[in-house]
Amino acid sequence: MVVALDAMASDHGPSVLVQGAVAAARDFGIPVALVGNKDILEPLIEKEMTPTERLSLPVEMVHATQVVAMDESPAEALRKKKDSSIQVAFDLVKQGRADAVVSAGNSGATLATAMFTLGRIKGVRPAIATMFPTLKKPSLMIDVGANVDCKPSHLFQFAVMGSLFVQEVLHRPAPRIGILSIGEEGSKGNQLVKQTRDLLQESTLNFVGNVEGRDCFTGDVDVVVCDGFVGNICLKLSEGLAEAILRMLKAELESSFLATMGYGLARKAFRNFRKRVDYAEYGGAPLLGVKGVAIICHGRSASKAIRNAIRMAHGLAESKLADKLETAMSDAAVSR
Amino acid sequence: MVVALDAMASDHGPSVLVQGAVAAARDFGIPVALVGNKDILEPLIEKEMTPTERLSLPVEMVHATQVVAMDESPAEALRKKKDSSIQVAFDLVKQGRADAVVSAGNSGATLATAMFTLGRIKGVRPAIATMFPTLKKPSLMIDVGANVDCKPSHLFQFAVMGSLFVQEVLHRPAPRIGILSIGEEGSKGNQLVKQTRDLLQESTLNFVGNVEGRDCFTGDVDVVVCDGFVGNICLKLSEGLAEAILRMLKAELESSFLATMGYGLARKAFRNFRKRVDYAEYGGAPLLGVKGVAIICHGRSASKAIRNAIRMAHGLAESKLADKLETAMSDAAVSR
Repeated sequence: MVVALDAMASDHGPSVLVQGAVAAARDFGIPVALVGNKDILEPLIEKEMTPTERLSLPVEMVHATQVVAMDESPAEALRKKKDSSIQVAFDLVKQGRADAVVSAGNSGATLATAMFTLGRIKGVRPAIATMFPTLKKPSLMIDVGANVDCKPSHLFQFAVMGSLFVQEVLHRPAPRIGILSIGEEGSKGNQLVKQTRDLLQESTLNFVGNVEGRDCFTGDVDVVVCDGFVGNICLKLSEGLAEAILRMLKAELESSFLATMGYGLARKAFRNFRKRVDYAEYGGAPLLGVKGVAIICHGRSASKAIRNAIRMAHGLAESKLADKLETAMSDAAVSR
Repeated sequence: MVVALDAMASDHGPSVLVQGAVAAARDFGIPVALVGNKDILEPLIEKEMTPTERLSLPVEMVHATQVVAMDESPAEALRKKKDSSIQVAFDLVKQGRADAVVSAGNSGATLATAMFTLGRIKGVRPAIATMFPTLKKPSLMIDVGANVDCKPSHLFQFAVMGSLFVQEVLHRPAPRIGILSIGEEGSKGNQLVKQTRDLLQESTLNFVGNVEGRDCFTGDVDVVVCDGFVGNICLKLSEGLAEAILRMLKAELESSFLATMGYGLARKAFRNFRKRVDYAEYGGAPLLGVKGVAIICHGRSASKAIRNAIRMAHGLAESKLADKLETAMSDAAVSR
């Protein structure tokens, strides 16, 4: 199982991507195809590996002449840049030379290229799922950005895909599915949520009802279902808030001698805490509903996030999640 | 200017409400009418005030025989409980015996009673606004729960009301208005956001464009506009996340001797930090768009939040914000 990494596009440029890929090959023995301009990537690869590793690690390079910029229109990139690193990465999967794609580049372009090149599972709206930390085990939120205007049937599909992901990848039986709303009672929510509830209640999923924003982090549901507009806002809001809280706290902790000393003593606790809330631990967000494996990483991903995303991509490819999803989706279409 | 407080309904019962009211009268000299069952309230009032204060503080009691439960249907409460503490509180305003209402009870019932008893400003969808902390000054989010299914014209109204609130109450000229979306570019967002953008761009408001969830806490906009479904989820998500982060951090800080000692030394910094992110500092959320002043408090409000909400209610009544809103809304209807 080979993971193709778009090694050109991220907020931090190719070097963190190469580092992450080499780490994945070194730590987990996962074969990685680094896709991008060889004049840029070769020196980085040389620098990152010892001479022995250069012979032994399963890291190869696949040349691509173009790069999709972070702010480029996905539709235009798809049409005009046939030799972009993201397109070539998906072509490798199409050709059977790789089994999964990881990208920290333009997420719209990754999404569009994945859908176009791999194809969608029949009748399904692909959605982006993301894991997030809770007070208990991590939960999954789906969709966090692929579909901004949704119908109840789309949200229902997200629930089916999220449930299967948690079951197969996180090995939790009968995942508890909640729908994100503004009150626990079934009467609370907008039209979309109320109509989706009806579909979920009639299904064989382990639907536990509405989840409020406040309950997302208690870990009492395994899958939080929402439309991609709401999910993307939640994702970015959480990120912004966590960052703001840590910055405000740091400012307070540096404001006096005693506090600074206390901070010094508790440094290890802070490090553990940061690790716990760090999205990099989770790697990336899988795009579910396409005929293959695609992981979308944060543009700001550090090498650790890339490494972990490659591990997740490899696991998804091995577990044949996309095939299982295809079966589940056609069953679900029947059973509801 | 008298503030009527529903003194019966909150998650913690009447005593914190009475404490908050007495604190507002004591600290700011604001006259407060405590509305509720006199058999329950009188002993609490006696306990809370010194004998001298009982003679001097501007705290009166207005009897009401019923209470709307936290989980009761707002429509039913409005129809059946004509002598509930929340209804009597709004009746006081209607009769000119009070100038504003503060409630930490059933927020749906507060909303419904406010709209029914005070009436809406013509052609306007009332919305709940809430202040939240940022890295700079606090910002305002509107709507956070009054309207779950919105049209672009509603969001436009929220922007006009939020702008005026920030201008009049927080004394910031030309408030920067952002619309909550999933990318900075104008092309990003759902249909509702895109259509609202057109209205905002044609208006005289200081519209600065899309705001992502991540940017909410940087303090670079004064007003974040969204529909009540998204806003309510954001509000509760932020609350849940802040709580989860603090709990995770506390667990880490108690996990070793050094960390605990460090935490002890930095205790004051933690207190300052908590104060900074504590919603109680902001009191409550004003309901804008009704013909009068109504402040909706969190059911879990501590006495400090009640005290601050009473101060905010008093300020809004004094500044005649509702009248100014009425004028602004009819101007806005013309200017766009």
